[in-house]
Amino acid sequence: MTALIDSRRRLLGLGACAFAFAAAGSAWAADTVSRNNAIRAVAFDAFPIFNPERAFAIVRGLFPDHRDLPGLWFQKVFSDTWLRTSARRYVTFDEILAESLDHVAASVSAPLGGAARNEILTAFSALDLWPDVRDRLGQLKAAGLQLVVLSNMSEAMLRANMARNGVTEFFDAVLSTDAVQAFKPTPEAYAMAMHRLQLEKEEILFAPFAAWDAAGAAWFGYPTAWVNRGKQRAEPGAPDVRVGADLGVVVEAARG
Amino acid sequence: MTALIDSRRRLLGLGACAFAFAAAGSAWAADTVSRNNAIRAVAFDAFPIFNPERAFAIVRGLFPDHRDLPGLWFQKVFSDTWLRTSARRYVTFDEILAESLDHVAASVSAPLGGAARNEILTAFSALDLWPDVRDRLGQLKAAGLQLVVLSNMSEAMLRANMARNGVTEFFDAVLSTDAVQAFKPTPEAYAMAMHRLQLEKEEILFAPFAAWDAAGAAWFGYPTAWVNRGKQRAEPGAPDVRVGADLGVVVEAARG
Repeated sequence: MTALIDSRRRLLGLGACAFAFAAAGSAWAADTVSRNNAIRAVAFDAFPIFNPERAFAIVRGLFPDHRDLPGLWFQKVFSDTWLRTSARRYVTFDEILAESLDHVAASVSAPLGGAARNEILTAFSALDLWPDVRDRLGQLKAAGLQLVVLSNMSEAMLRANMARNGVTEFFDAVLSTDAVQAFKPTPEAYAMAMHRLQLEKEEILFAPFAAWDAAGAAWFGYPTAWVNRGKQRAEPGAPDVRVGADLGVVVEAARG
Repeated sequence: MTALIDSRRRLLGLGACAFAFAAAGSAWAADTVSRNNAIRAVAFDAFPIFNPERAFAIVRGLFPDHRDLPGLWFQKVFSDTWLRTSARRYVTFDEILAESLDHVAASVSAPLGGAARNEILTAFSALDLWPDVRDRLGQLKAAGLQLVVLSNMSEAMLRANMARNGVTEFFDAVLSTDAVQAFKPTPEAYAMAMHRLQLEKEEILFAPFAAWDAAGAAWFGYPTAWVNRGKQRAEPGAPDVRVGADLGVVVEAARG
């Protein structure tokens, strides 16, 4: 795996890195994706598309003495999804977001008022696109690929972000793991794209944001193009996958 | 749940707190456990019995500029067990310990040499007892309770620690989740004690060390006496359980 910039902040999650996406675009920038491989669809995690920074900025504004709170929060969010999936005690991702925010805020003695809490959580339905997204989605659609989102977020949250940014029409399906009551990286969660698209694993390119989702998608068996905007270190034991700093890596992988 | 001392270090795991057990013993200190409830056995996690500080001290000695490395390490250790259990990509706990140690060391730009790595990992088979353990195990045995350990650690590691500290004879079984290839908090892992002891859930008192294990055991349905030596904050959504700073809480809960 590519050696990535590393620091303790990186380990602590994506929050510290939300603005760290590379300014440099992909070297390959043709207008369409001329494909010579088996890929027929791309399944995106939500965060390669939608930038969570809007929510993190509110957290940092409310707690200026705890700059690492967004990173701690998202580390807790995802470890809670795995803990609850292991225990088979599913709750919705909205509940995970809220519970873990309260938990980390209290842990740094920065308890939240109800209005602030609501403002932060509401921001997850009003995220912005990363700047490269619209053009890259257009390239992928022009190449005849089906595009879906496959996320832990609720379908309502995903659709709100799509509608707000005018990208709904790019996507052939919106798949929330809520439908299987098991978060990624369970096989049941990843398999949702195969079932909806009626395609084989090797025909679906998965585009994760987080190191753990890159490991999970590759373990499941999807060809994987890791959109590592946060310059995260690969998970221990993760299969080697294609990795890049923006959606250029997805276009390149789809091209074959 | 009892309000516990909280700080960011607490959130980051047990490492920072390994020496933080309360000096005050249990208020109840009879020679035997006179029981008037249904409890017939106690299933202990390993860490209420064995203090991981020996391994953490080596880490801190090797990396004096990274005092929080033990906490980061153990946070990564357990989130990796849940991630891999969710993905159904089991590896042994020994492998998790090693991989996650390499990962966090590299993340703080403090890479490990092979000898240092081996010294740290070997220490997990040569841990000391917490000071209250021997007397409390004696009380529980004198009350006619069966005692087992049910841990993510390998059986070899558990037996080495028992033999080294002369407590093997207190335990009726040594249960490693390696036997079911699924870490706690899976139901399969917790159920090992029921199967081995041929007892019902309500007859087995579970004694966890970590907040996540207290949540997991209680979610599974075991009566739970949380030996919260690290003064960890309860997990979001965890059932309310009995909690104390040392094995006194186990004796009290067994007493009914």
